[in-house]
Amino acid sequence: MSETPYFVHPAALAESEQIGAGTRIWAFAHVMKGARLGRDCNVGDHAFLESGAVVGDRVTIKNQVLIWDGVTIEDDVFVGPAAVFTNDLAPRSPRNPAAVARYAQGNWLVRTRVEQGASIGANATIVCGVTIGRAALVAAGAVVTRDVPAHALVAGVPARVVGWVSAAGTRLVFDERQQTTCPETGNRYELRDDRLHPLAP
Amino acid sequence: MSETPYFVHPAALAESEQIGAGTRIWAFAHVMKGARLGRDCNVGDHAFLESGAVVGDRVTIKNQVLIWDGVTIEDDVFVGPAAVFTNDLAPRSPRNPAAVARYAQGNWLVRTRVEQGASIGANATIVCGVTIGRAALVAAGAVVTRDVPAHALVAGVPARVVGWVSAAGTRLVFDERQQTTCPETGNRYELRDDRLHPLAP
Amino acid sequence: MSETPYFVHPAALAESEQIGAGTRIWAFAHVMKGARLGRDCNVGDHAFLESGAVVGDRVTIKNQVLIWDGVTIEDDVFVGPAAVFTNDLAPRSPRNPAAVARYAQGNWLVRTRVEQGASIGANATIVCGVTIGRAALVAAGAVVTRDVPAHALVAGVPARVVGWVSAAGTRLVFDERQQTTCPETGNRYELRDDRLHPLAP
Repeated sequence: MSETPYFVHPAALAESEQIGAGTRIWAFAHVMKGARLGRDCNVGDHAFLESGAVVGDRVTIKNQVLIWDGVTIEDDVFVGPAAVFTNDLAPRSPRNPAAVARYAQGNWLVRTRVEQGASIGANATIVCGVTIGRAALVAAGAVVTRDVPAHALVAGVPARVVGWVSAAGTRLVFDERQQTTCPETGNRYELRDDRLHPLAP
Repeated sequence: MSETPYFVHPAALAESEQIGAGTRIWAFAHVMKGARLGRDCNVGDHAFLESGAVVGDRVTIKNQVLIWDGVTIEDDVFVGPAAVFTNDLAPRSPRNPAAVARYAQGNWLVRTRVEQGASIGANATIVCGVTIGRAALVAAGAVVTRDVPAHALVAGVPARVVGWVSAAGTRLVFDERQQTTCPETGNRYELRDDRLHPLAP
Repeated sequence: MSETPYFVHPAALAESEQIGAGTRIWAFAHVMKGARLGRDCNVGDHAFLESGAVVGDRVTIKNQVLIWDGVTIEDDVFVGPAAVFTNDLAPRSPRNPAAVARYAQGNWLVRTRVEQGASIGANATIVCGVTIGRAALVAAGAVVTRDVPAHALVAGVPARVVGWVSAAGTRLVFDERQQTTCPETGNRYELRDDRLHPLAP
C-alpha cells in the first residue's frame, strides 16, 4: 500500500488529490475534492476547505477556519483559529424562491486573496472582494471590509489601519520623517500615502 | 432496508425523527433528537442543531452554525458560516454554586425568531430575545442585540440599520420621497418611521 | 474492562489522562493529551482543548470553544459557544521563513486566565495576556483586549465595562452613593475607582 507524502488524522476527511508533501490535516478537518493545498501546511481540527479553495505552501490554517471557493491564500500565511472567509456579498438561501434566479445566473461569487506572509487573527471575518496585502496582520475579531495594505495592522469592526508590522510581525516605529528600519532585516521603509514604501539601502 | 428521504453524510450525526425530504446534512454536523428540520434544507459541516431548535423549509445552514433550543428559523432563511445563536442573557455554568438556583427555576431560556427569507452573515452573533424580520440581511460579523426590521440591512457591533434590501438581496435606492421600486418584483415601498412599508400598486 | 468515571461520546476524542470524574465530553470534541480538565465539566460538540490547557471543576465549555496551551480556566466558569482564546500576540505561520527565528526562540506564548465563576459570551474573542476577573461577564461577540475587573460586564470591540453583575449574573443597580446589595446573597458592594469593593456587613 502506497503512503501519501502528507499526514491525515484518522478522524479527518481529505478528499483532494492536490495536497502537497509534508502537509498535516488534523482531526475532524475536511479538505474537499477540488481544493488545492500546498506543501508543509498545517490544517487544524474542524477546519474546512471547499472545492475551489486555493492554499499555497507553508500555510498555517488553525482550527475551525472556513475557506471557500473563490478564496486564494498565498504562501506562508497564518489563518487564525475560527477565522471565516465569505464568497457572496448578498447571500440568500439558493432555494429561496426570491433568490433562485440570482443563483442560476452563477455570477454571485466574489473572490478574495491573502498575499504572501500575511496573518489573520482569531475569529476574524473576511468579507469577500478584498485583498489582504503581503505581511499584513488582521487583529483578532476584526471584520475586514476593504483592502488591507501590505504590512498594515488592521483592527476593529469594520477593520481600520492602526499600525504597521514587519514580515516577522514586529510593530514598526517611525521617526519624524515617517521612516523606519525593520528590526529583523535592516530594510528601510517610508510611510507615505497610507502605504509602506521600501527605501533604497 | 428502508432509505430515508433525506441525505446524511456518513460522518454526520442525525438523531432527529423530524427531518424533511430532500434535506442534506454534511460531515461532522449534528442534528439532535428533538430538533425539527424542514424539507430541502442544507446543513453544512460541523453545524449543530440542539433539541428544541425549529428550522423551516429550504433553509441553508452553513458550516459551524449553532442553533439552540428556543431558536426558530422560518422558511427560506440563509444562516451564514459560523453564525452563532444564543438562548440565555446571563449565562453561568449551571453547576456553579451561585447559579444552581437560577437554572433550577427553569425560566432562563429566551427565544429568538428569524423570519421568512432573511439572511444572517458569516460569523454574526445573534443575542437572544430578538426577531430578525422577513428578508432582512445581517452583515458578516455583526452582533445583533435588538429586533431587525423586515428588509433592513444591519451591520456592526452592536448591529445598526445601514440600508435596505429586496427579497433577493439587492440594495434598495430611494427617491427624494423615500420611495423605491424593487428591481426584481416591481413592488413599490416607502421608507417611513424606520420601516419599509408596501405601497399600493 | 474498567470504565472511566467520566463520559466521552463515541464520536469525541479524549486523549488526556487528566479528566475529572463526572465530566462529559460530547460529539466531535477533542481533548488533547496533556490538557487538564477538572470534575463535573461539560464540553460541547466540536470544542477543542490543546495540550497545556488547564480547566478547573464545574466548568461549562460550550460547542466549538477553542482553548490553547497557556490558557487557565478556573472553577465554575462558563465559556459560551464559539468563544475563542488565543496565545500569540503577533502570529505568523511558524514555517514562514521570516518567522522561523521567532518561533525557534520559544518565548512567543502569552498566557490568559479566567477567574472563578466568570462567563464568556457566545462568539467572544479573548486576546491573550489578560485576566478575566471573578464573576465577570463578557458579552456575546465582544473582543477582550484588556483585563476585565471582577463582576464587570464588558461588551463591544474592543470590550469596555458597561455594567456590573452578581455572582449569579444579575445586573447590579447602584444607589446615589454608588453602593448596592447583591439580590441573591445580601452582600453589599461599593463601586469605586472602576472596581467593585465589598462593604463590611
